[in-house]
Amino acid sequence: MKLIIDAMGGDYAPIEIVKGSIEKLNITPNLSLIFTGQEAIIKQELSKYTYPLDRVEIVNATEIIEMNEPPVAAIKNKKNSSLVVALDLLKEGRGDAFITAGSTGATLAGALLRVGRIKGIKRPALAPIMPSKTKGVLLIDCGANMDCKPVNLAQFAIMGSIYMEKVLGIPSPRVGLASVGVEDEKGNELSRASFELIKEENAVNFIGNIEGRDVFDKVDVVVADGFAGNIMLKSIEGMAVFMFDILKTELTSSLRSKIGALLLKPSLRRMKKTLDYTSYGGAPLLGIDGIIIKAHGSTKARTVHFTIQQAMDMVNADLVNVIKSSIVSTEEND
Amino acid sequence: MKLIIDAMGGDYAPIEIVKGSIEKLNITPNLSLIFTGQEAIIKQELSKYTYPLDRVEIVNATEIIEMNEPPVAAIKNKKNSSLVVALDLLKEGRGDAFITAGSTGATLAGALLRVGRIKGIKRPALAPIMPSKTKGVLLIDCGANMDCKPVNLAQFAIMGSIYMEKVLGIPSPRVGLASVGVEDEKGNELSRASFELIKEENAVNFIGNIEGRDVFDKVDVVVADGFAGNIMLKSIEGMAVFMFDILKTELTSSLRSKIGALLLKPSLRRMKKTLDYTSYGGAPLLGIDGIIIKAHGSTKARTVHFTIQQAMDMVNADLVNVIKSSIVSTEEND
Repeated sequence: MKLIIDAMGGDYAPIEIVKGSIEKLNITPNLSLIFTGQEAIIKQELSKYTYPLDRVEIVNATEIIEMNEPPVAAIKNKKNSSLVVALDLLKEGRGDAFITAGSTGATLAGALLRVGRIKGIKRPALAPIMPSKTKGVLLIDCGANMDCKPVNLAQFAIMGSIYMEKVLGIPSPRVGLASVGVEDEKGNELSRASFELIKEENAVNFIGNIEGRDVFDKVDVVVADGFAGNIMLKSIEGMAVFMFDILKTELTSSLRSKIGALLLKPSLRRMKKTLDYTSYGGAPLLGIDGIIIKAHGSTKARTVHFTIQQAMDMVNADLVNVIKSSIVSTEEND
Repeated sequence: MKLIIDAMGGDYAPIEIVKGSIEKLNITPNLSLIFTGQEAIIKQELSKYTYPLDRVEIVNATEIIEMNEPPVAAIKNKKNSSLVVALDLLKEGRGDAFITAGSTGATLAGALLRVGRIKGIKRPALAPIMPSKTKGVLLIDCGANMDCKPVNLAQFAIMGSIYMEKVLGIPSPRVGLASVGVEDEKGNELSRASFELIKEENAVNFIGNIEGRDVFDKVDVVVADGFAGNIMLKSIEGMAVFMFDILKTELTSSLRSKIGALLLKPSLRRMKKTLDYTSYGGAPLLGIDGIIIKAHGSTKARTVHFTIQQAMDMVNADLVNVIKSSIVSTEEND
């Protein structure tokens, strides 16, 4: 298996990206890597490590797309960026999957412009895994599509369900539609029309509308338009940070609490780990005709491990082809 | 000051509603109460307490609106319900404000049909206070309006700002628009058009787009359509429950952690208190031509105290008239 890695994307690139990639390479037989980016810089990073030289390749790309560049312009103007070069390699079949921690907008635009959608998929979606009481819950879409149509959400439901079943091994994943109440008629125009479409998808184990408070145990997949999904994701992340802040203040507020905190250190560490979304890897971009994972901008070496594993699991599940055939059969049914 | 209380609405009505109301009455000079509901039942509850008899009135209402009744039909068919009778008393000026812990949908429908909107306000909104690092943050709208227009969100911004300034005493409250990124151009069609309108409101201290993770310290008011707002609110509530669940599991997982938990008991209690949204009272229904607070369905006596105080603060701030004059001046400017 060969993975393409954007060595220049992300807050800690190239240092942490190269470090995590090589560490994972060294414990994974049959894995090869192609780094895209400025060759001299990548070589310098690689020189820090011992690794099987024949399983690492560098494809030089002199330009870097910054986080705040207008995405489409960046893709069109920076043909020699680490992102565009990587996407072209993926398109040409030079690698089985592609990972980047670079700009989300540019990754989305580049994936559409350089790799393209799976035929029949109207809008690809970004689908991170959020912590939950079970194996994590996939949120699709978390921000790739601002104004959606019901058919988009129905396709998100199919793709999300396939991901959780084929990649994470959850049989008949429970799919819920983000809404403002659990009753069938609750929601806005978009969600109510989407409800009717998803209900008709035989391949989806649709449990109906769910509320924000249900995502942690009642479902394996949450379907939402990208606006609502992003608000859900970031509210949850924000609340976690807020609560840890309060906890920290409380745990250092007196001698008594400091001693208590000391005793609870292992517990609190485990709690933080349970809530650490980076251990789930990055957000797959589902619906693109190739396997692409957008890792978090703040990705460090440890998260690169998880993300490479995730990419390998997606390749092994033959995810793109499974989605392709599910969409073909849906269209045939129409 | 005279408040109208729906004695029959809520999971713990009438027992906890009457209890909290009478307790608060007994520590508040110049407060009078009108309970609406089944007279015999209310009298029986009242018989448990000592209180100034001349400051409590019962207006008999034989019907009860259940939580799951279709709202508009309930209001139209149950004219003798505790909710409709109370709303009519408010409309007639028999009380200064009205509190109910009953069905949200019926309260909204009833407020519109029996009391009516403030002239110029196109859509009233439900605006609870969420815990934050400061005095709490007002979320407007949290679910009264599913499909909004930009003008609705602009009016939410004005009303939310007035509430935080006049009722909670926050000078020049910071108003943020719920979106998927902090940059001006981020968002969906509705949020981007709303951004342009809110920006023009001179009376609003608009700090621009905010993300879910910014609500806990960067703003005093979060403006959102009712669908996105509800998803935000319930995701935050859900995450709090999820984290307390994990914490509880961890704190009882070993002898060491149990001892630590014992030492941290006061800290954890304070933490829970900080995050307890019921201490902020209920959700005011802003934009109605009368002061109405929708208390949480699970409201108990302690929360009734806070909600009565909140209603009194709203009356003292002359909130309806302040909103009226702000809307008149906005319309004159158009």
